[in-house]
Amino acid sequence: MSRAAYHCELAWLGGDHAVADVLVEVDGDRIVTVTPGRRADDVPEGTVQLAGITVPGLANAHSHAFHRALRGRTHDGVGSFWTWRDQMYGLAATLDPESYHRLARATFAEMALAGITCVGEFHYLHHQRAGEPYREPNAMGEALLAAAADAGIRMTLLDTCYLQGGIGQPPNPVQRRFSDVRVEHWIERVEALRSLASPVARIGAAIHSVRAVDPASIEQVARWASEHEAPLHAHVSEQPAENHQCIEAFALTPMELLAERHALEAAFTAVHATHLTEHDVRLLQTHRSGVCICPTTERDLADGIADTAAWRGAGIPIALGSDSHAVIDLFEEMRATELDERLSSLVRGNHTVTSLLEAGTVGGHQLLGWPDAGRISVGSLADLVTVRLDSVRTAGVGSEHALATTVFAATAADVHHVVAGGTVVVRNGAHVTLDVAAELHRSIGAVWAAAADAADTPEATR
Amino acid sequence: MSRAAYHCELAWLGGDHAVADVLVEVDGDRIVTVTPGRRADDVPEGTVQLAGITVPGLANAHSHAFHRALRGRTHDGVGSFWTWRDQMYGLAATLDPESYHRLARATFAEMALAGITCVGEFHYLHHQRAGEPYREPNAMGEALLAAAADAGIRMTLLDTCYLQGGIGQPPNPVQRRFSDVRVEHWIERVEALRSLASPVARIGAAIHSVRAVDPASIEQVARWASEHEAPLHAHVSEQPAENHQCIEAFALTPMELLAERHALEAAFTAVHATHLTEHDVRLLQTHRSGVCICPTTERDLADGIADTAAWRGAGIPIALGSDSHAVIDLFEEMRATELDERLSSLVRGNHTVTSLLEAGTVGGHQLLGWPDAGRISVGSLADLVTVRLDSVRTAGVGSEHALATTVFAATAADVHHVVAGGTVVVRNGAHVTLDVAAELHRSIGAVWAAAADAADTPEATR
Repeated sequence: MSRAAYHCELAWLGGDHAVADVLVEVDGDRIVTVTPGRRADDVPEGTVQLAGITVPGLANAHSHAFHRALRGRTHDGVGSFWTWRDQMYGLAATLDPESYHRLARATFAEMALAGITCVGEFHYLHHQRAGEPYREPNAMGEALLAAAADAGIRMTLLDTCYLQGGIGQPPNPVQRRFSDVRVEHWIERVEALRSLASPVARIGAAIHSVRAVDPASIEQVARWASEHEAPLHAHVSEQPAENHQCIEAFALTPMELLAERHALEAAFTAVHATHLTEHDVRLLQTHRSGVCICPTTERDLADGIADTAAWRGAGIPIALGSDSHAVIDLFEEMRATELDERLSSLVRGNHTVTSLLEAGTVGGHQLLGWPDAGRISVGSLADLVTVRLDSVRTAGVGSEHALATTVFAATAADVHHVVAGGTVVVRNGAHVTLDVAAELHRSIGAVWAAAADAADTPEATR
Repeated sequence: MSRAAYHCELAWLGGDHAVADVLVEVDGDRIVTVTPGRRADDVPEGTVQLAGITVPGLANAHSHAFHRALRGRTHDGVGSFWTWRDQMYGLAATLDPESYHRLARATFAEMALAGITCVGEFHYLHHQRAGEPYREPNAMGEALLAAAADAGIRMTLLDTCYLQGGIGQPPNPVQRRFSDVRVEHWIERVEALRSLASPVARIGAAIHSVRAVDPASIEQVARWASEHEAPLHAHVSEQPAENHQCIEAFALTPMELLAERHALEAAFTAVHATHLTEHDVRLLQTHRSGVCICPTTERDLADGIADTAAWRGAGIPIALGSDSHAVIDLFEEMRATELDERLSSLVRGNHTVTSLLEAGTVGGHQLLGWPDAGRISVGSLADLVTVRLDSVRTAGVGSEHALATTVFAATAADVHHVVAGGTVVVRNGAHVTLDVAAELHRSIGAVWAAAADAADTPEATR
């Protein structure tokens, strides 16, 4: 990384319109100049010409990398979120640091191809199969950090506290891999993880859910996050059953319980938040907390439609995640946010093109603890994602409709050039260092082969 | 067209699984042999090898080709179906047979790239700007038929009766282009159109809606369709307002009115059918009528979520359409059918992978009047659509999950080879005769330039 210059045919610099002929100069991992109205033939020698529209790097604010291996394998048949979870657990049981690294590297590289330059990995697959820690207790987290670095994207590792299998219930055999048993052990492990923070990696915290973490432990995780100014995420009210269980146990909604235990006093993000009460929304608003929705996953898992228009009305920051990676396409998540709202409200325009773009860029970065990213502006991290406006999906619009076309018609397949933190990661639609489809094929094949082997091996000999 | 042979690595021959190593031989426009289990190196000389999974040609059962020019231009801002319609009317006012032909050719070619080998064009843009017929009264319909032929796909031209601007209201200035004023004129025009039927074009009928056609005229259109055994389609209950208006005027739901006027005794398809009563569904079931849903358009236009699980339970045939072409991707329509149902029911698996594939292939062909298409079987029209299983979207699944991956993870961009009626239309992901993105760019640019000119021209001189 040193100095580089990019000339963008069109660029989104914030606001309601794309700007023509923008020269962006980069030094190291930062943007140092942004000059609109600079003719393409009046640029420094060596300037890279970017046709189409260039937007800031996309932030994928909620990811479970290993779920990528489930794509195509869990959609059929009858069931619910809970039967899907059983299938996901079958996969989780098979991974080790090496297979996890390979699968995550391929998955993060698929994200890079889709214009994602930063991922929030909600990481709870910590321990060995029977629940005992690895010799290096953060071996699995290190595998994820290495995978993101290999793929050329930044990461906030949201190390996830997971202690119990349900409210007041011990972990089941698969869940033992997730569990630190006591919150003090989680804190000890995450303290050690902090030494791995770098210019491309930040360490955050997560509470898996009010199902998996008891109230006293929620409070300790929240205190840790506040003290370290670390982002704190939690799955909240994805399914009605979670609300029912929480109200029955504590006479509080999950959000109310998290608030009572001071989680919302940290830099808090509620993930999904599909089934909130009005009071829950007010709590988020009062505490200036954020929400991360994952529309393609919420469709797949039959979660329901959140009232995202109410959040927008309350000024709550919104981020987007591809979560289970049934689809990795942040443009699809952007438009799904608005389109699913239309399906429930029967009104168009609850969100704007600009607000949807913000959710996928600056909003996500903010909630992952990167306030210095998600904008094409001087001093920001140099993330530039260029989208073709001459594919069959995007052809036929002029510059005045380029933003709407990006949000409502482009797909991940239209991303043709990606710069992440000053480094070119994708060129002509291909990852610069990895054969991503081949890596996906190999790594996913390997984990399912391991799962089949495990199924053939008697329990006692594993 | 003469004899040709294709070896499919995997093919869907119906049922729940893809079959390996299928040799398909074609003579003219028909499939003459289908041989599963034939090794790739044991095939006739000149056999084309198709890697990935090959499915039957996709049928796009509801299209308004000219809406393609709206993509990216109508998504932003606040509004409803009805404000969107005003924008669509602005476009409709500008087209003539030549510009319509070019725009439709590009749109149908985009469909070919997406694996669509047959389109049902719901055609109501009949007349000159002030409403007077063209010298050749079917000039606009002929433009559409020529466009489909140029793009290499088959068409059912659903010529659409449109008489009034609303229940008991005259057409507004734009709607005059749609209106034949009296149903007898519609019949006369459509009779003439029948001479244009061919091996690649069939003529069907449509009732625009109960808003646009009075009850007595509905009955005459239905009689014409029954007498000619022509498919009959109608927009039904896309918006709650239509139901309210119809009940107020006739004390019947739109479906009840159509049934009372014998429309369901023809080979009838209700398009959208978003807001049906239980009685409406029973009417469809009793008359063995079909439904065509257009999920990506219904999302975009804030129509709401139809109870498609109830239709499936009632054994009602389902077809899919890309309608307004905000997206042209039948795989997205397939999965959206199930995913949107999940969002309202909170249950997974209302539809199966197989039933969704059937809706996009044999179901659509059936409701467009092509009972001889939509299957890879001896005697069927030779439509073969091959989907890559080695893209970043589809990599990592084996043959046992190929169907689910096609429906839930593939996109139109994964279609790499298309045979329509025995002719190769798409090879290596590119249309064999047209530069589709360039045609879209030129044709859409031209219609909006014409619209801008028209806006600058005083009304009196137009």
